[in-house]
Amino acid sequence: MHRLNVPLPGREYEILIEKGLLDKVGRRCRVVLMRASRIVLVTDSNVGPLYAQRVKESLEASRFQVKVLTVPAGETSKSPEMLAWLWEEMMAFGLTRTDAVVALGGGVVGDLAGFAAATLLRGIDYVQIPTTLLSQVDSSVGGKVAVDLQAGKNLAGAFWQPRAVLMDPEVLETLPDKVFADGMAEVIKYGCIWDDRFFEMLDQCGSRAGVMNVIEQVLHICCAIKAEVVLQDEHDRGMRMILNFGHTLGHAYEKAYHYETYTHGEAVAAGMCRAAELGAQMHFTPAEVPGKIAALVKKFGLPDRIDCTMEDYRSAIGSDKKGQGGQIHVILLMNLGDAKPVYMPKKELLERIERL
Amino acid sequence: MHRLNVPLPGREYEILIEKGLLDKVGRRCRVVLMRASRIVLVTDSNVGPLYAQRVKESLEASRFQVKVLTVPAGETSKSPEMLAWLWEEMMAFGLTRTDAVVALGGGVVGDLAGFAAATLLRGIDYVQIPTTLLSQVDSSVGGKVAVDLQAGKNLAGAFWQPRAVLMDPEVLETLPDKVFADGMAEVIKYGCIWDDRFFEMLDQCGSRAGVMNVIEQVLHICCAIKAEVVLQDEHDRGMRMILNFGHTLGHAYEKAYHYETYTHGEAVAAGMCRAAELGAQMHFTPAEVPGKIAALVKKFGLPDRIDCTMEDYRSAIGSDKKGQGGQIHVILLMNLGDAKPVYMPKKELLERIERL
Repeated sequence: MHRLNVPLPGREYEILIEKGLLDKVGRRCRVVLMRASRIVLVTDSNVGPLYAQRVKESLEASRFQVKVLTVPAGETSKSPEMLAWLWEEMMAFGLTRTDAVVALGGGVVGDLAGFAAATLLRGIDYVQIPTTLLSQVDSSVGGKVAVDLQAGKNLAGAFWQPRAVLMDPEVLETLPDKVFADGMAEVIKYGCIWDDRFFEMLDQCGSRAGVMNVIEQVLHICCAIKAEVVLQDEHDRGMRMILNFGHTLGHAYEKAYHYETYTHGEAVAAGMCRAAELGAQMHFTPAEVPGKIAALVKKFGLPDRIDCTMEDYRSAIGSDKKGQGGQIHVILLMNLGDAKPVYMPKKELLERIERL
Repeated sequence: MHRLNVPLPGREYEILIEKGLLDKVGRRCRVVLMRASRIVLVTDSNVGPLYAQRVKESLEASRFQVKVLTVPAGETSKSPEMLAWLWEEMMAFGLTRTDAVVALGGGVVGDLAGFAAATLLRGIDYVQIPTTLLSQVDSSVGGKVAVDLQAGKNLAGAFWQPRAVLMDPEVLETLPDKVFADGMAEVIKYGCIWDDRFFEMLDQCGSRAGVMNVIEQVLHICCAIKAEVVLQDEHDRGMRMILNFGHTLGHAYEKAYHYETYTHGEAVAAGMCRAAELGAQMHFTPAEVPGKIAALVKKFGLPDRIDCTMEDYRSAIGSDKKGQGGQIHVILLMNLGDAKPVYMPKKELLERIERL
């Protein structure tokens, strides 16, 4: 078993990574949820049929009363309406302040159930069981929970830390290739921004099967990197920006194709390649780095390039909620494993993209 | 002007109490909202027509862009649907992380707008302008924000501290007598649980007019007491319980009459008298105290007694979310100005009520 401690002051928790952990969820929850008697298990219509019964039985074997709430799979469930439905169902089941929520699913389930837990009775405990590669490496650390609004994604939410994150890498076996690759883009990102040896390790894995051979280690490294970054900037006011490497341009691609043609990971992969080229153009990034990143993302079936119009770039950059006024932070690589935010006029950024 | 500092670590703020303060809201907001350019002013259909324009003009004079959002007056506005509406309208107006919400109204507006601010973009600044006596003495300190669910009041919410609380006692002039009395029950409660000299002072005031003569001082004392209690127990896990003096029995009265016949304050007034009698019966409370409290509440047009059936008591006590298992905390007076939580079996409490 791999254990990683996330030492947030007052709300410290552990990430446990172990094959077969799904069957031990009850025992782990007994340790971290000492006063709970009831648990609402939130899952979605994809993950529920595969794993909810196993998790429920494990919890019941540890003497929790369990109610399963299943939301439709997909981003549209991250809505204020679904949040209100969870609140009502949780109260109808009789949850009290000492009870808890367990989120079993990908990012949508984690964000939605986490936000419900953050606000029910002004905040109750929750435990995350992320079941996609993306949610395992991305949402297990950081405490960001939210729902989407009509105006955009993740616009209503909170910072709320889980009592524990339980990852069973075996659940990744049932993911379609496209969904696995979606998570790999973020995995590769951690190598790019923080750890060149990890980048090298991924390059040697070379494929989904190769990564699965060392998956516990891969998950551990990604979460450890995110924890280091987040601990220095819990409320997302500066340093945490480097986690957005590839995301500003990726955002342009997602938006240009109406969030349909490309997954988030595919857009981020192409965004990272483009951002590395941009860094090279500005003499920040060594010339050989863009090629190395492109070669690696392609090994995992991710695109190293997505085309869009200058208008698409303009729209994504101009309305990007991370930007303010006429300047924008772009994350550039000083080298593989070393990222820095660079603050530049949006106009200059667009000109530089045009010249790539 | 009266100033009271609420020294929460990292989120310190000031309560300002001054007649005519409504016209200075803009200047005060400039001081505490240094980076804000846009403000959403949330109010209700009672308070808006009286005061929203004045506050808006004051804010605009200090170069804020202001959008007024008006919800229907009354508890039904404290709903998940209204919360979602506020979120969408706030984003449509273009609020960013550095902008702010101002709540102008009573407890409903403060709780609803505060919860919207606590969660929009994972939390933005807000300033409270409470306009009822109850909200001035009760919701200005403690950081509790929430909406109601079908299962009960305040069941979904957060702890979120305002950047400032601005109280203009002149707005109390427009309150109907019943609404003023509603707040007086809580004012008297502070005397009962914390400060016998304040209790004495209220007794000498003797009427609404008498209280209005020293209203700035009254508001200051109430908020200072609540701040002392809350600072020792920010997340409501123990000590803060004494603020519930009179509330468990009051809850039975409110519920028995379907929240219609009696205001919250009326129910609390009768609940305090009953709780004092209970304390006397148990030899905790000196024998003359119940009579003193009854005399004082009656001076302000509040009932010292509300009848309900034992079944009503049972239902209110049994399902009271503050209770756990078969025991319940009842707040009793050791003397005027000195309250203690006493943990006793619900069964014993009911028997003792029956014998009163």
